Amino acid sequence: MEFINGVKQKEDISISQLLTGAYIGQTVKLRGAVHNVRDMGDVVFVILRKSEGLVQCVFEAHTADPAAGSLSLSDIRSLKEESAVEVTGRIAAEGRAPYGFELRLSGLEILSEPAEILPLAINKFKMHTSLEAKLALRPISLRNVRERAKFKIQEGIVRGFRDFLMSQGFTEVHTPKIVSRGAEGGSNVFKLDYFNKKAEMGQSPQFYKQTMVGVYDRVFEVAPVFRAEKHNTTRHLNEYVSLDFEMGYIDSFEEIMAMETGFLQYTMELLAKDYQKELDLLDVKLPDVSRIPAVRFDKAKELVAEKYDRRIRNPFDLEPEEELLIGRYFEEEYGSDFVFVTHYPSKKRPFYAMDDPEDARFTLSFDLLFRGLEVTTGGQRIHDYQEILKKMEKRGMDPADIESYLMIFKYGMPPHGGLGIGLERLTMRLLGEQNVREASLFPRDVTRLEP
Amino acid sequence: MEFINGVKQKEDISISQLLTGAYIGQTVKLRGAVHNVRDMGDVVFVILRKSEGLVQCVFEAHTADPAAGSLSLSDIRSLKEESAVEVTGRIAAEGRAPYGFELRLSGLEILSEPAEILPLAINKFKMHTSLEAKLALRPISLRNVRERAKFKIQEGIVRGFRDFLMSQGFTEVHTPKIVSRGAEGGSNVFKLDYFNKKAEMGQSPQFYKQTMVGVYDRVFEVAPVFRAEKHNTTRHLNEYVSLDFEMGYIDSFEEIMAMETGFLQYTMELLAKDYQKELDLLDVKLPDVSRIPAVRFDKAKELVAEKYDRRIRNPFDLEPEEELLIGRYFEEEYGSDFVFVTHYPSKKRPFYAMDDPEDARFTLSFDLLFRGLEVTTGGQRIHDYQEILKKMEKRGMDPADIESYLMIFKYGMPPHGGLGIGLERLTMRLLGEQNVREASLFPRDVTRLEP
Repeated sequence: MEFINGVKQKEDISISQLLTGAYIGQTVKLRGAVHNVRDMGDVVFVILRKSEGLVQCVFEAHTADPAAGSLSLSDIRSLKEESAVEVTGRIAAEGRAPYGFELRLSGLEILSEPAEILPLAINKFKMHTSLEAKLALRPISLRNVRERAKFKIQEGIVRGFRDFLMSQGFTEVHTPKIVSRGAEGGSNVFKLDYFNKKAEMGQSPQFYKQTMVGVYDRVFEVAPVFRAEKHNTTRHLNEYVSLDFEMGYIDSFEEIMAMETGFLQYTMELLAKDYQKELDLLDVKLPDVSRIPAVRFDKAKELVAEKYDRRIRNPFDLEPEEELLIGRYFEEEYGSDFVFVTHYPSKKRPFYAMDDPEDARFTLSFDLLFRGLEVTTGGQRIHDYQEILKKMEKRGMDPADIESYLMIFKYGMPPHGGLGIGLERLTMRLLGEQNVREASLFPRDVTRLEP
Repeated sequence: MEFINGVKQKEDISISQLLTGAYIGQTVKLRGAVHNVRDMGDVVFVILRKSEGLVQCVFEAHTADPAAGSLSLSDIRSLKEESAVEVTGRIAAEGRAPYGFELRLSGLEILSEPAEILPLAINKFKMHTSLEAKLALRPISLRNVRERAKFKIQEGIVRGFRDFLMSQGFTEVHTPKIVSRGAEGGSNVFKLDYFNKKAEMGQSPQFYKQTMVGVYDRVFEVAPVFRAEKHNTTRHLNEYVSLDFEMGYIDSFEEIMAMETGFLQYTMELLAKDYQKELDLLDVKLPDVSRIPAVRFDKAKELVAEKYDRRIRNPFDLEPEEELLIGRYFEEEYGSDFVFVTHYPSKKRPFYAMDDPEDARFTLSFDLLFRGLEVTTGGQRIHDYQEILKKMEKRGMDPADIESYLMIFKYGMPPHGGLGIGLERLTMRLLGEQNVREASLFPRDVTRLEP
């Protein structure tokens, strides 16, 4: 009988192993994709792309290692870009090469070859092509080192979210994405037929995460959400990754903002520690999140109207331009890239939002703006059964439609609140990108269902 | 201007803080739900449910702390179960209480109260109720300590998956769940209208994770998948969480099995370390995963036919009963709860599976059975463009339907493979549950779209 015992060390050496310096002067095997072949005559450089970065391999016809055996200049010259290869060679210090070393080629094995030449110069540092072209060729354009650095940083944000919340006593949950019709209402939902029942794709894990507060006190989820909005803007996606948390036993909704600030503080440190290479590659400077100003919705409108000489057209709504100006105001006045805007009008918030007991026209809720873009919506929720019934009645909603959600209040819920962060928007602003599609591996928008 | 500076320590003390022993003799505040009130006459026990476990609080009328002020026996007696409360009291060692301590009540604040009495005795250690009843009242029944322990262990499995793969150089990715029609084919898909285009919910991130191997060499994703199968069995869900990984530059498909074995080894250690309390609560014994036997599909059928005197009806398919018997065989003969069944017939595998070069009727693929239940499907994939085109032609498939997927082969892909693990099935078998619905917070099946 054959047995599988676990992972064996592969011969293939990683860049981090090479960076220990332990391999200088030694002959090693590396696997990767042929990113670039630069023919300088007697010397040919082969740039190998590995997951962590690029490795310079060099073949010199005259000084070829005798160990190279049959490896010839023409073998190297005929290498096709995007071939998967295993190269053998001695590691030598070389100040001009990435990471300060190169591999002197003595052996080459082709593991697989492409059928056609790339339609896009992905091995250029900057691709200088339109977003449209990049997205149409997304499966290939993501191989560009700058493109993939973006999503490595996105990985770091998600890691930061999870690790920080786990350290704060949160439990990770997985809730269903196919939900019954009429859950949260609204027309911006994708509908589907579920074994002859009306169903829709979840716009948010809202009801489920609140439910789970009754079970674990503090919960989080990282999962896709779906919005059938017809907006084709630089800020909207029809499917995105939502970073959600919900926490019980809060004293005020400020605690939720404090938790988000803690997440941002932890994550910026994590990025600086583990993702500095990618930050440098993209020339990203991390924002200061040591303190984040918080301003009331109505006050923010006034401040902006005053400073930028702008008339308040609708006191109960924020226009995208106003969001940008609020961002600008707090950047100019307090040097902050972030600002919490609090106490949104009750009319603009869902029925489950808790109204401010001091003025029920407003809610105990907030948005977080990052350089003028809303990246988070959160707040305290109603926890009392009679109160939520009353609010539903006022809005003409039928409790029977969401009976299993209302069950949690009927049988007891602690005071609680939470938030949802749009991962792609947060990534986009952090990277300084102008279009949210740049921060989604395979964006879904009104016209885009592929790749 | 108000500023938010990050998380402040709350007055509320956690069970882990109490377990340090530092609070014995001290007066503390604890928040939680009233899980149970046991009135013994002059002494009343209030069991407080916190996310980490239960805390025994005790009120004795005659010896009440003078600090208790106005707190009376009748206050305590009138406490409603599932109220959210803050209790104040002195921590005292008490061998008969959970964790070896109790809280001598001197203060009580009710944070919120239920509107009705629970319809289910969730505060019983075992609820002794039907699965149907538990699922109908899921938002409440999950508050039972054994129910929530299950999903805490599930959290541990997911943590193990991520942490182990990150340590092996994998990158986490997020790929779209709304995909274009006809991607993987088959009738078991949920269809939806996507802005007047035909779309479906992804059955698997297969194409996307392969695509991302071209970018990061090794990737993983934890996300929901959707299957419109009409089977109403104890093993099927119509939406489940899939633990997927895909790795490039492999030498053989055995490397994928080795990686999965490594994940299981890491995860069992993690569970033993961080989730022992939950394992004990559910009386779960972790399986030995130091080595996992691997047997060919055809050989496995023979072994079972021989030992259990069973006729092989279809040499190219495994019946659920055969899976159970294979599981039993390897338990009896090798003491193993797991077995890899390899080299599945080509006809039973998707077009992208790599055929065995030694016998094209079989593939370089595997399933992992856990106590006779398939919990994983994986294998090596075709990486050559001409080869995948040929296989598609043989199956009557049109390359134009999946052009953006085929792009990755056209422009070069390394040899690669991967797998998908059904999180709920793995959890179910680990917990010794007989129905996969027991391992899903809010299961979706043919008749169940709520809660």
